[in-house]
Amino acid sequence: MSQLRVPFAELESALHRAVLRLGLTGERAALCARLFAETTRDGIYTHGLNRFPRFAQMVANGQVDVTAEPERTGGTTVLERWDGHRGPGNLNAYACMQRAIALAKQNGLGAVALRNTNHWMRGGTYGWLAAEAGVFAVCWTNTMPNLPPWGATTPALGNNPLILAAPRKAGPVVLDMAMSQFSYGTLAAYAKRGQALPAPGGFDAQGNLTTDAAAIEASQRALPIGLWKGSGLSLMLDLFAAALAGGLATHQLSRDPLQESGISQFFLALDPSLLADPADPGAHDRMQEQLLDAILASVHAADPVTPGRPARYPGEQTLHLREENLRLGVPVDREVWERLPSIFS
Amino acid sequence: MSQLRVPFAELESALHRAVLRLGLTGERAALCARLFAETTRDGIYTHGLNRFPRFAQMVANGQVDVTAEPERTGGTTVLERWDGHRGPGNLNAYACMQRAIALAKQNGLGAVALRNTNHWMRGGTYGWLAAEAGVFAVCWTNTMPNLPPWGATTPALGNNPLILAAPRKAGPVVLDMAMSQFSYGTLAAYAKRGQALPAPGGFDAQGNLTTDAAAIEASQRALPIGLWKGSGLSLMLDLFAAALAGGLATHQLSRDPLQESGISQFFLALDPSLLADPADPGAHDRMQEQLLDAILASVHAADPVTPGRPARYPGEQTLHLREENLRLGVPVDREVWERLPSIFS
Repeated sequence: MSQLRVPFAELESALHRAVLRLGLTGERAALCARLFAETTRDGIYTHGLNRFPRFAQMVANGQVDVTAEPERTGGTTVLERWDGHRGPGNLNAYACMQRAIALAKQNGLGAVALRNTNHWMRGGTYGWLAAEAGVFAVCWTNTMPNLPPWGATTPALGNNPLILAAPRKAGPVVLDMAMSQFSYGTLAAYAKRGQALPAPGGFDAQGNLTTDAAAIEASQRALPIGLWKGSGLSLMLDLFAAALAGGLATHQLSRDPLQESGISQFFLALDPSLLADPADPGAHDRMQEQLLDAILASVHAADPVTPGRPARYPGEQTLHLREENLRLGVPVDREVWERLPSIFS
Repeated sequence: MSQLRVPFAELESALHRAVLRLGLTGERAALCARLFAETTRDGIYTHGLNRFPRFAQMVANGQVDVTAEPERTGGTTVLERWDGHRGPGNLNAYACMQRAIALAKQNGLGAVALRNTNHWMRGGTYGWLAAEAGVFAVCWTNTMPNLPPWGATTPALGNNPLILAAPRKAGPVVLDMAMSQFSYGTLAAYAKRGQALPAPGGFDAQGNLTTDAAAIEASQRALPIGLWKGSGLSLMLDLFAAALAGGLATHQLSRDPLQESGISQFFLALDPSLLADPADPGAHDRMQEQLLDAILASVHAADPVTPGRPARYPGEQTLHLREENLRLGVPVDREVWERLPSIFS
């Protein structure tokens, strides 16, 4: 698929026009477009512009209600339950993480469990949001069944992306990972190129581990990270999200990606700066920054497998890539980009 | 190593006598012994009785101060920071999870970050504690460097066990997993038996993935779960624990297991029953129990790889094994069991 680079502002405004055509209005339209554009800007190409056509399809088929806003339905002073009313998943998730951040800044700790929402697109978005607001955060979502439990051949788990984010002045540390070794988007890309995966990504029809992405697409037997361990973690994330939100669990969701609506998510934020000595709050921040720098330096200092290529920390590449994409233009797939103005027009 | 079965009460009282000889007193001695005994009872043989000799060595070498009690050093109404004063790790962790549970029962959500503590032995202990108290919990610990980051050959990460636990009347769901595919204890057991690991567990000296446990023990290159993903998650867990606790990070800890002291941990508890409709609180509990049952049933219903052996959920075997070990006697290694009375006597 041929690519071109477009200025970020142009990408954002084209998405803004498209979002307005979908029926979003005002600040909600602007935010929705910005989140899609920033995802592509940050190099998560599967969940930015390239994901927009599916988002538009789900507005068209009624799974995403563009007029619906998330609503607090209950809670204590620090743990709230919200209903997403099947509105746009990225707007719902953004609102709930913002709320968790506000609760954490007031209390040290705050959480929002969200039910009845839609795909949040790039999960890392909400980690970056928290880290840039100066707090630590953990969030996750459940998904439709797309991953067999360890020991089974048919999907019963979701790949349930998990995000952990830490604030750091020199650049946040943000982990954004699904519970399958590779996403179905990545498998599709390798299959299309006929390229072997860099590590086994699932089972073929004969039940053998394979690096053949097309064989895994055919068997639908993606590999959980850490085999039985990721299988267990995926189950726990689903169970926590659905129980805390009072929402739907993976097994209750449609297996059709275009009908995957009503999912459950959980957002937790922590603000340890509230533990600082009131006489010298700056000391706490300095110590935390030094600690994080030292941890990251220790990872960089490990002997690399490939000389000159030190191990990286989660999110390390994002700021470089962001800067490059802002400077050179954001890479977009020509076909998706050229089709964008005709979506919903 | 030959084994025998001893009645649980006999195991607990032998451990109690040994703990008293170490200098613990009163309820602290009884609790410390009970936690070691229950770990063996539940089938986590590496971290119960078999771990006790190393615990005693660390009391002897001064790394574990049996007289030290954990202390709250700061906090908000829901996020507290405690100092373990290098006391017994299982007592410190037990106290901090109990505190997080109390905070959650009052506020819906509560967390304790603990610094300056020691190895907590079986991490699942604190998950079971929370689940049996009727709340959801997440906790983790950092460890000494024992895992190379993805892309490196020397340890810079810990294997940082992570626990998630959910309450359920029919039996809690408890995940207790380290960030390496196999623990060094498991590797040692396979190496001793000359048996191949059931999946690649690390790299040999040539840098090839291997199922040869002895080769991994020699290279010290265990495999993070999910390759780059578990590597990233391990880093985040260390970073969160150390920053939230204001404590030491993995890279600051000794690589000598007998000097691994001053570690950092994090305990989070959640009580969604506070979100119940006050007019009918029982309905919330019933719906939650039904939801969990349905999630677990969906995992059991997935087509098994081996006919008649359905996929299992985390902790599923524990209650069976516990019942069996209480009925038949708890399996112990004869040599460790016979040596126990001479430790510190």
